[in-house]
Amino acid sequence: MKTMSWTVKQLILLDQTKLPLIEEYITCTDYQRVALAIKRLEVRGAPAIGAAAAFALVLAALELSAQQLSYPEFVLKLKNCQQEIAAARPTAVNLFWALEKTFALTATCQTVAELITALEQTALSIYQDDVQANQKIGEYGAALFTEQINILTHCNAGALATCGIGTALGVIKVAHQQHKIGMVYADETRPLLQGARLTSFELQQAGVPVTVITDNMAGWVMKNKMIQAIVVGADRIAQNGDTANKIGTYSLAVLAKEHQIPLYIAAPISTFDFSLVDGEAIPIEERSALEVQSIQGVATTPPAMPVFNPAFDVTPAAYIQGIITEYGVIQQPTAVKILAFRKQHQL
Amino acid sequence: MKTMSWTVKQLILLDQTKLPLIEEYITCTDYQRVALAIKRLEVRGAPAIGAAAAFALVLAALELSAQQLSYPEFVLKLKNCQQEIAAARPTAVNLFWALEKTFALTATCQTVAELITALEQTALSIYQDDVQANQKIGEYGAALFTEQINILTHCNAGALATCGIGTALGVIKVAHQQHKIGMVYADETRPLLQGARLTSFELQQAGVPVTVITDNMAGWVMKNKMIQAIVVGADRIAQNGDTANKIGTYSLAVLAKEHQIPLYIAAPISTFDFSLVDGEAIPIEERSALEVQSIQGVATTPPAMPVFNPAFDVTPAAYIQGIITEYGVIQQPTAVKILAFRKQHQL
Repeated sequence: MKTMSWTVKQLILLDQTKLPLIEEYITCTDYQRVALAIKRLEVRGAPAIGAAAAFALVLAALELSAQQLSYPEFVLKLKNCQQEIAAARPTAVNLFWALEKTFALTATCQTVAELITALEQTALSIYQDDVQANQKIGEYGAALFTEQINILTHCNAGALATCGIGTALGVIKVAHQQHKIGMVYADETRPLLQGARLTSFELQQAGVPVTVITDNMAGWVMKNKMIQAIVVGADRIAQNGDTANKIGTYSLAVLAKEHQIPLYIAAPISTFDFSLVDGEAIPIEERSALEVQSIQGVATTPPAMPVFNPAFDVTPAAYIQGIITEYGVIQQPTAVKILAFRKQHQL
Repeated sequence: MKTMSWTVKQLILLDQTKLPLIEEYITCTDYQRVALAIKRLEVRGAPAIGAAAAFALVLAALELSAQQLSYPEFVLKLKNCQQEIAAARPTAVNLFWALEKTFALTATCQTVAELITALEQTALSIYQDDVQANQKIGEYGAALFTEQINILTHCNAGALATCGIGTALGVIKVAHQQHKIGMVYADETRPLLQGARLTSFELQQAGVPVTVITDNMAGWVMKNKMIQAIVVGADRIAQNGDTANKIGTYSLAVLAKEHQIPLYIAAPISTFDFSLVDGEAIPIEERSALEVQSIQGVATTPPAMPVFNPAFDVTPAAYIQGIITEYGVIQQPTAVKILAFRKQHQL
């Protein structure tokens, strides 16, 4: 089972909306199909979205190359494709980061053929870099724990959300190899059940003990001292450490504070949006009412019931014990500490 | 649509597991069927369970009366029935309260015929008293709000959970009549979706504006100042005000504290368990894993995934702004204040 693979100029995506009951793959031969897959959450998770978008731009370039355009015309049309892909989802910054990194090659290349080669190489290196970043995040994260503990996680920040072993689940998997995991509690993560469907499945496959709870049980689990740490992923992190992640993360952060349980964010540097002073400006995607009005196609409310469906929330940095990156852990993040970290690692 | 009705020696229960899509009634002609309905949550909500149990004991007495037993033999057998009904669910104290109140009549009656009449009258008066208690709770609760506000509620503490207009939803309905409700946010309340299915439906029928959210959105709704108060019901309240209610209430209480939003418990005096010093001793029902592993029969996790499924949690009194009863509101409840309140109202 592989979240995504690039083979013979095609992007093969595991359809995550059908997991865990059905293992089905989508073969994307054009960039529009990749954008649709991002929109539909067939591919999801900030780092995975970034890599998929980079490959989508390669597909767009391949398609445009048939038109025999001049290089400036080609770049202009490619820009439109880039914007179309970027419009798929608004919150995860990795999408824009990957598209900017790849599109920037248009300025250094001189011919279409040269550009296509560069785009493909860069997309593949974004993928490979994420594999390595996951491993480093896993190691830095696992090193935070000195004894066997129970961890709570939310949504799916695993192999299914990245190109490697995962961010939050990467930390958990490496900690498990080091015999530091007693039990992982996985919030089911309504509305789309990424915890119940994906995290439970992924951890079970990896041999990590896991127990699923409904989201509203997290507080009671903390009150009963059943967990000692929370580790989650991120979709966008501001200059000061404010972190957008799956809806429900903020509630967990408040509960963690009340119970003096550390909350860790595990994310690659590409998840930082250094253009934002704080989390206030992070756009929060609101998704279809149907997601709340139903579960796996079964109605959960009376027809056409009004709902509110923000897909993400923002956790202020003050609630975060540490941000685990591939360059190390930023403890109790602030704007000053994050700036110093960037300087230290030349980021 | 009526939650329960007693007619020609039968208890008719609205099957709440099928709402809102199907309106179906269960005709209970024996006490075992009522106990099963309580167990299955076909009838649910602490006050409704209490009334249903009282009627179940009438059905048990009617059934036993065919056996031509002596009065002491009759009472002995009725005791067994009482215990069987009491075993249906462990947390809501109204169940035991109603059974004790009705069974106590065995000591004051002399004949089976006399007892049956007394049992039926008492069951009917438990029902009627709850109707009136709901109305008073609604009025005392609505009086707490001086301007139009948005309220968050959890689970269903409405007409479907009681014999009248409801406890938490009674407060909301009376406040709505007084033009004090801008919007009600209803947590969907996994695993059994009493908020999404029942509260949304009940409030919509009553003309109260309602928006459903998933449980993990409550914190974000508070952070964004979208609600000004939380009102929920209760399943058991200890001497000191510690309150057992639907799982997720404790998380809301912690979130409410962090956002300085008042949390009110709305419950009749029959929900108090004055035998308990605090909430530590309240038994918390754990229900079937299937409830978390599926929604309305559709799998949400991989097969046989381990889950934790406590149906209730306990909110310490310190998190509660007030308990709204049919005798008035106990503000910032403590053991001392609750004792004074009992003395004042001779409870």
